[in-house]
Amino acid sequence: MLTKTPSFSDIKRSHQRISQYIIQTPVMTSKNIDEIAGCHIFFKCENFQKVGAFKMRGAANAIFSYRPEDRVNGFACHSSGNHGQAVALAAKLAGAKAYVVMPKNASQVKVDAVKGYNAEVVFCEPNDASRTQTCADIVKKTGAILVHPFDDYNIIAGQATAAKELVEEVDDLDCIISPVGGGGLAAGTALIAHHLDPNMEVYLGEPEAVDDTYQSLKAGKIIPNKTAETIADGLKTTVGVRNFEILKEHVKEVFTVSEKEIIDAMKLIWERMKIVIEPSCAVPFAAILKNKDTFKDKRVGVILTGGNVDLTKLPF
Amino acid sequence: MLTKTPSFSDIKRSHQRISQYIIQTPVMTSKNIDEIAGCHIFFKCENFQKVGAFKMRGAANAIFSYRPEDRVNGFACHSSGNHGQAVALAAKLAGAKAYVVMPKNASQVKVDAVKGYNAEVVFCEPNDASRTQTCADIVKKTGAILVHPFDDYNIIAGQATAAKELVEEVDDLDCIISPVGGGGLAAGTALIAHHLDPNMEVYLGEPEAVDDTYQSLKAGKIIPNKTAETIADGLKTTVGVRNFEILKEHVKEVFTVSEKEIIDAMKLIWERMKIVIEPSCAVPFAAILKNKDTFKDKRVGVILTGGNVDLTKLPF
Repeated sequence: MLTKTPSFSDIKRSHQRISQYIIQTPVMTSKNIDEIAGCHIFFKCENFQKVGAFKMRGAANAIFSYRPEDRVNGFACHSSGNHGQAVALAAKLAGAKAYVVMPKNASQVKVDAVKGYNAEVVFCEPNDASRTQTCADIVKKTGAILVHPFDDYNIIAGQATAAKELVEEVDDLDCIISPVGGGGLAAGTALIAHHLDPNMEVYLGEPEAVDDTYQSLKAGKIIPNKTAETIADGLKTTVGVRNFEILKEHVKEVFTVSEKEIIDAMKLIWERMKIVIEPSCAVPFAAILKNKDTFKDKRVGVILTGGNVDLTKLPF
Repeated sequence: MLTKTPSFSDIKRSHQRISQYIIQTPVMTSKNIDEIAGCHIFFKCENFQKVGAFKMRGAANAIFSYRPEDRVNGFACHSSGNHGQAVALAAKLAGAKAYVVMPKNASQVKVDAVKGYNAEVVFCEPNDASRTQTCADIVKKTGAILVHPFDDYNIIAGQATAAKELVEEVDDLDCIISPVGGGGLAAGTALIAHHLDPNMEVYLGEPEAVDDTYQSLKAGKIIPNKTAETIADGLKTTVGVRNFEILKEHVKEVFTVSEKEIIDAMKLIWERMKIVIEPSCAVPFAAILKNKDTFKDKRVGVILTGGNVDLTKLPF
């Protein structure tokens, strides 16, 4: 179990640990997109990852970090989204039980997906207090191990492996940009970029509506979000404590984008690249389009975080 | 210029001719899709091809088959869809002029796409007679060479290269299935499968609503479609003469599917594989789902033909 900021070795070990449980996702490029953006973008397609999102990396790393004899009481998490599915699948692969706390108004599709990985779904009221309490009750009652979605060094080390694969595959990246919500992926990306190439610039993209990381880095302390009103549903969370410390150290700049900019960028990727991505991962691309001077002619790595969207409720 | 059914050598030469102008598209698989279908499917992703469709292969082969001195008067075609874009881009790459006849009610997006490749768009009335006449007038006036969308041996040899790459990349395919409209891709696929592995079964998928190939193969002669009412807008055309002769020889069976089956199959691919595909290329997958006994446990190659859809008018 990692109890401090992951070292380069920690991340390499994490990558070895999870490699057989994850997909080494492809890196895609598009001449058309490059022309529009004015730079060379290398998209790491975690929408093709197991459970449809990079979250599988962190969950697998957290769960497989425990010895088999320590997994007997299973694992618990609260999530109405990708983290829940990732914990469910990683636990299943580890031969362990998973408890996933979900709000009772969660969509049936998401509930079915988690159940499809043999996890036990435990419903709670649709608010933070009930989620936390319900999850704590399960941990107390069953002895299950809590898997935090982002504020955890094993999760951060696991998410770092996406950028690790990207930087190792693509030569001479000038910079890398990740979206930021709780900061699991953002912190992992920033760390591994620093380890692999200390000169690589690390940027983050964040919705204006939930710009806690932008505000927090400016203030030097965590300023929680006041709303969760964004289409980028993976980025509503306020940045975690461990994550914030890493971001403070290694991030050059946070770019914020409007809801319209997110939707336009998302549509552009669907149309030109023919891939299905979530609104959350359109945020970095929207940030590039909004700040063309910063990225002009550079080789830019972008993590496309996932592809789990309700196709019957698209914003365009 | 090919004036008879392409031989294996003809197709190999076509592949060499166009290789620098096309993308060698990836082959994708999905455990999840395989579980649903009960077989092992290898999807050849021509939705990632230039202009977003396999049509680029045939158009490039047809245009680059002419010597530079024979390209001086340019090329003409009529198409409101992928073939028009493909001819426009291939002509541009060949340094030649392209005239694309489009119905005057064609969507602005499609007109802009063709113009984006520097082609001259010539509008006609939205009916077959006007399209054909307008195109013939251009050919007469300018000396441009007509590029037929499917009933042409160079086009057939070009389209065959998609299945060629698929069969060469994936070992031990038991069968291959392509959609059929005019039959350029279908005939090319059937031919190259036969050349590379005479034991490989070739199937076609066709919308019930425009089942001319199914009816024609049963009758032993071409029975034209009576309607064009299908969501699979790439498959409305009646099969061509040259194409039909090849299909008669090499196709084991044509499976027809309903509009609902097409839409359901399309949605499943979007959801589970996170890729954007046209309704036309959901047809073979719908046929597999409808005929699970035929494909049970087999290794099945499927050509995903393209990804050009209007994202604001999805059928789900």
